[in-house]
Amino acid sequence: MRLAVDIMGGDNAPQSAVEGCQIALDTYPDIELIMIGNQDNIPETMQKSPRVTVVHTTTAIESEDSPVKAVRRKKDASMVLSVQYVKDGKADAAVSAGNTGALMTAGLLIVGRTKGIERPALSPMLPTLNGDGFLLLDVGANMEAKPSHLVQYAVMGDVYMKKVRGVESPRIGLLNVGSEEGKGSELVKAAYEELNQMPLNFIGNVEARDLLEGAADVVVCDGFSGNLVLKSIEGTAMSLFSLLKEELTSSLKNKLAAGVLKPAFKTVKNKMDYSEYGGAGLFGLNAPIIKAHGSSDAKAFASAVKQAKVMHDESVIETIRQSVESIKETGDQ
Amino acid sequence: MRLAVDIMGGDNAPQSAVEGCQIALDTYPDIELIMIGNQDNIPETMQKSPRVTVVHTTTAIESEDSPVKAVRRKKDASMVLSVQYVKDGKADAAVSAGNTGALMTAGLLIVGRTKGIERPALSPMLPTLNGDGFLLLDVGANMEAKPSHLVQYAVMGDVYMKKVRGVESPRIGLLNVGSEEGKGSELVKAAYEELNQMPLNFIGNVEARDLLEGAADVVVCDGFSGNLVLKSIEGTAMSLFSLLKEELTSSLKNKLAAGVLKPAFKTVKNKMDYSEYGGAGLFGLNAPIIKAHGSSDAKAFASAVKQAKVMHDESVIETIRQSVESIKETGDQ
Repeated sequence: MRLAVDIMGGDNAPQSAVEGCQIALDTYPDIELIMIGNQDNIPETMQKSPRVTVVHTTTAIESEDSPVKAVRRKKDASMVLSVQYVKDGKADAAVSAGNTGALMTAGLLIVGRTKGIERPALSPMLPTLNGDGFLLLDVGANMEAKPSHLVQYAVMGDVYMKKVRGVESPRIGLLNVGSEEGKGSELVKAAYEELNQMPLNFIGNVEARDLLEGAADVVVCDGFSGNLVLKSIEGTAMSLFSLLKEELTSSLKNKLAAGVLKPAFKTVKNKMDYSEYGGAGLFGLNAPIIKAHGSSDAKAFASAVKQAKVMHDESVIETIRQSVESIKETGDQ
Repeated sequence: MRLAVDIMGGDNAPQSAVEGCQIALDTYPDIELIMIGNQDNIPETMQKSPRVTVVHTTTAIESEDSPVKAVRRKKDASMVLSVQYVKDGKADAAVSAGNTGALMTAGLLIVGRTKGIERPALSPMLPTLNGDGFLLLDVGANMEAKPSHLVQYAVMGDVYMKKVRGVESPRIGLLNVGSEEGKGSELVKAAYEELNQMPLNFIGNVEARDLLEGAADVVVCDGFSGNLVLKSIEGTAMSLFSLLKEELTSSLKNKLAAGVLKPAFKTVKNKMDYSEYGGAGLFGLNAPIIKAHGSSDAKAFASAVKQAKVMHDESVIETIRQSVESIKETGDQ
């Protein structure tokens, strides 16, 4: 498969992206990369690889750029070109660690939505204590959701977890403030009814408190709520780790004991590290477009590349299209 | 001041409530308690105290009871009687660790709303790394908020932080998915505009990621969002602690090292423990009604009693009423 890679997005660009590309080339012999960005940052050995095409540009979309303006005006930006390559059939999928809003905008304006999906969803995998992880969508592509959007998120999540994560019958949960039916806002009450009618393994409401315990494989919510939950989890973990670090280095005695426990802390940190699961999918677009985490290192970037590859190899987009279509037909009868 | 205490609510009732009452009696010589519940659970020494009145009942509202039904039908429940004592002028404030929804319902139906407040808000203090804590409201009293509700939450939070927590000019933040103006749902965009016009120290949008770092002293949001954030923070902290426990006891070597670090872990846990700050206020009701955390121990319950006392002593309800009134007059001009 041919993958377009924006090497100029993210906090550690271009280094992480370039090194991540090298890992991907070494790991997946059937992958071809179109590396888009400043060619001066790409080692000559990579440039000479028959599996690498370099598209040189020095224009980048910055994290503080306004998404719509940036995508419209910077047509030669590495991110925009990556998505354009997919649209033009020169690449099967695209990966960027850059500005999330701009990538979603580029995806929408250039490759467009999957038929039957009203709103795409930004869909990261988050960690669970048992290591399986869960898919949370939407985390911010679409601020005002309707019940039908949440149902479509559920269908997309179901396909993704089956095809890419190998979960046989993904447990679909509705993010809510209580586990009992009838809880929550008008939106989630209506979505509950609709999800309950679907040919999905809908397990009902799930509470934010139970997410990391693995309450569901797919958790659907409006983008505003999902973003709050995602950032609350990140923020709490970060704050706790920084508190721990402060306390555990506050005396020589503590430092020595903490040294012994270093591997244990490392294990805990790794379990909470969601870069292992790849980036966030922009589900609902007409091609696999993956947003690698902004702070991706080489390994995380390579995970995002792998994710795009598996989405392509397993025809996730086509399966989503068919699933939404068949549901629509059932609904129309 | 006279405080009505429901001793039959919460996971550790009646023991924590009764012990918490004893701590409060010992600590605050000017407090009189009306202890409501099964008198068999109240030690004789307490019953004989001139500062204690016992109101005997064996009816309790259970955590799984439907709030409205329970409050309407169980008029002799310890929680309902506690609130009724406030309404009847026999107590200045009430504290319960029982069913949150039922307490809010009892508050609304029996003591009613403060004039000018359209919706009461459930308002807990959450921890920050520096120990100051912040007030988050609403966390679930009201699922569908309007911009005017968020403004009223801000006013109530401002008064509370000034009067009870001694913060001179509380920084009011609007919970949002980004820090820039113009971010988020229609609700928060409209609330931003209104908050910006208010005589408050409004610092703009705050992100969920930054809450524990102390991004604001008061954070306002709709009850659905607030509940998700509260439970995400709780859940992440709990999951991380349980992961740590598992790893740090996985070998004898780890156990020994972890033993040395026990005080350090204790410090971290204490910093994340919000029972120190008291319970969650039901702000917007016509009297101080405090929901102690369901899992309160005696110390946490005593903190909730203290909180009710300070709210009464500092005339928080009256100040809220005046503040809302004066804002309404300004708006009417």
